[in-house]
Amino acid sequence: MRDILPADKTRRERVLSVIRERYRAHGFDEIETPALEEYSRLHAGIGGDNEKLAYNVLRRGLDAEAIREAAADPAALADLGLRYDLTVPLARFYASNRAQLPGVFRAIQIGPVWRAERPQKGRYRQFVQCDIDIIGDDSARAEAELMIASLDALAALGLEGVTVRINDRRALDWMLDSFGFAEAERPGVLITIDKLDKIGPDGVAAELRERGAAGSAVDAFEAFLRRPQTMEYNPFGERQIRKALPENAPNDIVAHLVGIGAAVAASRGASASASDALVFDPFLVRGMGYYTGTIMELAHPSVDYSLGGGGRYDGMIGRFLGQQVPAVGFSLGFERLVDLVALGTDAVAQAVVLIHDADVPVAELIGHKSRLVATGARVRLERRTKNLKALLERSAADGYTAFAIVAAGASEVELKPLS
Amino acid sequence: MRDILPADKTRRERVLSVIRERYRAHGFDEIETPALEEYSRLHAGIGGDNEKLAYNVLRRGLDAEAIREAAADPAALADLGLRYDLTVPLARFYASNRAQLPGVFRAIQIGPVWRAERPQKGRYRQFVQCDIDIIGDDSARAEAELMIASLDALAALGLEGVTVRINDRRALDWMLDSFGFAEAERPGVLITIDKLDKIGPDGVAAELRERGAAGSAVDAFEAFLRRPQTMEYNPFGERQIRKALPENAPNDIVAHLVGIGAAVAASRGASASASDALVFDPFLVRGMGYYTGTIMELAHPSVDYSLGGGGRYDGMIGRFLGQQVPAVGFSLGFERLVDLVALGTDAVAQAVVLIHDADVPVAELIGHKSRLVATGARVRLERRTKNLKALLERSAADGYTAFAIVAAGASEVELKPLS
Repeated sequence: MRDILPADKTRRERVLSVIRERYRAHGFDEIETPALEEYSRLHAGIGGDNEKLAYNVLRRGLDAEAIREAAADPAALADLGLRYDLTVPLARFYASNRAQLPGVFRAIQIGPVWRAERPQKGRYRQFVQCDIDIIGDDSARAEAELMIASLDALAALGLEGVTVRINDRRALDWMLDSFGFAEAERPGVLITIDKLDKIGPDGVAAELRERGAAGSAVDAFEAFLRRPQTMEYNPFGERQIRKALPENAPNDIVAHLVGIGAAVAASRGASASASDALVFDPFLVRGMGYYTGTIMELAHPSVDYSLGGGGRYDGMIGRFLGQQVPAVGFSLGFERLVDLVALGTDAVAQAVVLIHDADVPVAELIGHKSRLVATGARVRLERRTKNLKALLERSAADGYTAFAIVAAGASEVELKPLS
Repeated sequence: MRDILPADKTRRERVLSVIRERYRAHGFDEIETPALEEYSRLHAGIGGDNEKLAYNVLRRGLDAEAIREAAADPAALADLGLRYDLTVPLARFYASNRAQLPGVFRAIQIGPVWRAERPQKGRYRQFVQCDIDIIGDDSARAEAELMIASLDALAALGLEGVTVRINDRRALDWMLDSFGFAEAERPGVLITIDKLDKIGPDGVAAELRERGAAGSAVDAFEAFLRRPQTMEYNPFGERQIRKALPENAPNDIVAHLVGIGAAVAASRGASASASDALVFDPFLVRGMGYYTGTIMELAHPSVDYSLGGGGRYDGMIGRFLGQQVPAVGFSLGFERLVDLVALGTDAVAQAVVLIHDADVPVAELIGHKSRLVATGARVRLERRTKNLKALLERSAADGYTAFAIVAAGASEVELKPLS
């Protein structure tokens, strides 16, 4: 975990306010859930590997005997935990508050999550997630709205050239079935396929054989990977999707993907096509076990890691509600984004440092400051230090644009530019 | 703890953004510290009663033996805890990051804190605190800057008629000493004096006698409370402060208070006086043990509870830094404020609901939506329901200002006002 200092905090809040504003424009509504959820809910098997990384909160009022007894059942020590994602809380939120929400609910959630990961550079145990989700719409419109809103937010942040890789878990499943992989071995096969970018077709085939996957299925898969064709998935449309998959891919899955592409293209006006931003990737896997359909991953040419992603999880809400409700979500990798984005300077008209000696009466100083604040300026008082140059440089680095030296008894201050 | 639904969340974010913007104008810089702090730091005796209300986080990797051993020492079960205020984390932050901060550091902190309080109406176990603090300035300028910025933020929120009651812990201490209360009994005496508003002079005198406080001291205090005088503490200035205290109050304490008043008056221009907002209250106590000087409490005529407060705590930073640094803070009671404030509607030009039947192709619908979003509107899609009137009413309640019925194949939509 880390402290966030002023320059960084200002930048983070500005990025969040742009994202929030764009998501709201697209009809999403922000909600907030508590940081703490019930222990049993956080450990119900839907959080995947993240469940193991949860910080659990000590049950209050445990006496010595209860503690001794918990040696046999450590889970008894905790009744609450810190959320490790915003998806499990959203499903719980929707089940609790459904009567007060629109039929199709478009949620924005922006807030910290906690995971007890091994410390490594650039990863923190508390970090901000920035999610949008659409609950109650099983059509391609939902995926399209998520992507259009996210692409708009990224454009508003000045980030150009992003692409969304897209696939469908059902297409993956159908493909593995058509090659002859048995249902039981598919989860393991997916873990290997997920490495295709890194280890290539040879590596994948070798690892699958090492895993002991059915030999004929591996042969069929390898032949498919090596088939002569240009991997031209772009522009995003039916012909390209069918070309990227084995023959006779199910019509409903292809139609759903094509529907997403058409809607994204429609959002960009007559002159553009969805291909600007969407790329069909039949080997995109994504880790979470709860995905049931479309999966998406955000990429930018300047970085080799994902900037976000999401997918359809039609089964999860039902676990809380006892009634199936379709859902799909998209999460921006805020901590990574914030480092990539270059925002212009503050919207404040002027930021002024008033430098004063100790002999300037408090009331005079405050009078000068207040008059400047009233003009719309941002104003900081600074006691004059021996090294005036260093003070001015530091003020400029902090985003101040002008300064004045305040003398006792002066009725006005004379502003000079800081550069 | 509670879920925050869209209307409430929008309102909260707007109030926070006004506060943030005004505090920044007054030269404060926002920072953020992690929600989790080390257990030992949260239980070092400076958090007062809040320490007992802390949520503690279970140490990871405890085995059965470690758990059994912890029966004798339950603190061994936890190594982290959720912060119960923003002051202890700020002191730790300042000690960690001092080299990168300005000589006088003006901090904004806005974030959740957690306390395991007994559930009661309107109080939550997770709530947002909104603090500003000035570290490194022992002059009255610091208190004045806090109050001026806070009064400005409240004015920007449209809250008029707020007052800040002000006192000095040193004045209280001197006063109790001058009446003859022994140092050891003063903490108990302060608890009783804190009830003066509720139980009056008779009640206070009776309770002090019941406590077994020195009889002659109680007599002297009672006589002072009953002395013939109009309790005219307003306007805030030297004459009034001296009149409200026993004779011969120490000059340095009075001068500090007068300095605050003069600076607040200066912020309001030549025509105003500090008395608009400041009230000297010699019996204001405030609970936290760490206050060492000025204490302040924010009041509004519409409510009988405090809307915030703060004080000087010159001793606390030193406990983390090993070197004395003066500090003073002011905390807005955000959860209470947000209920009092009436903000205007959204800044969005237009908020439109597009109502459609199932047969409108996704791409058409998204095209209509995107064209409207591009004009600066906020747009929500809604599937037409049998009860169109209810849908329109609900949309208006959600803040939407116009609607259109979208037909398949239409090249344009016709907006109608929602009212």
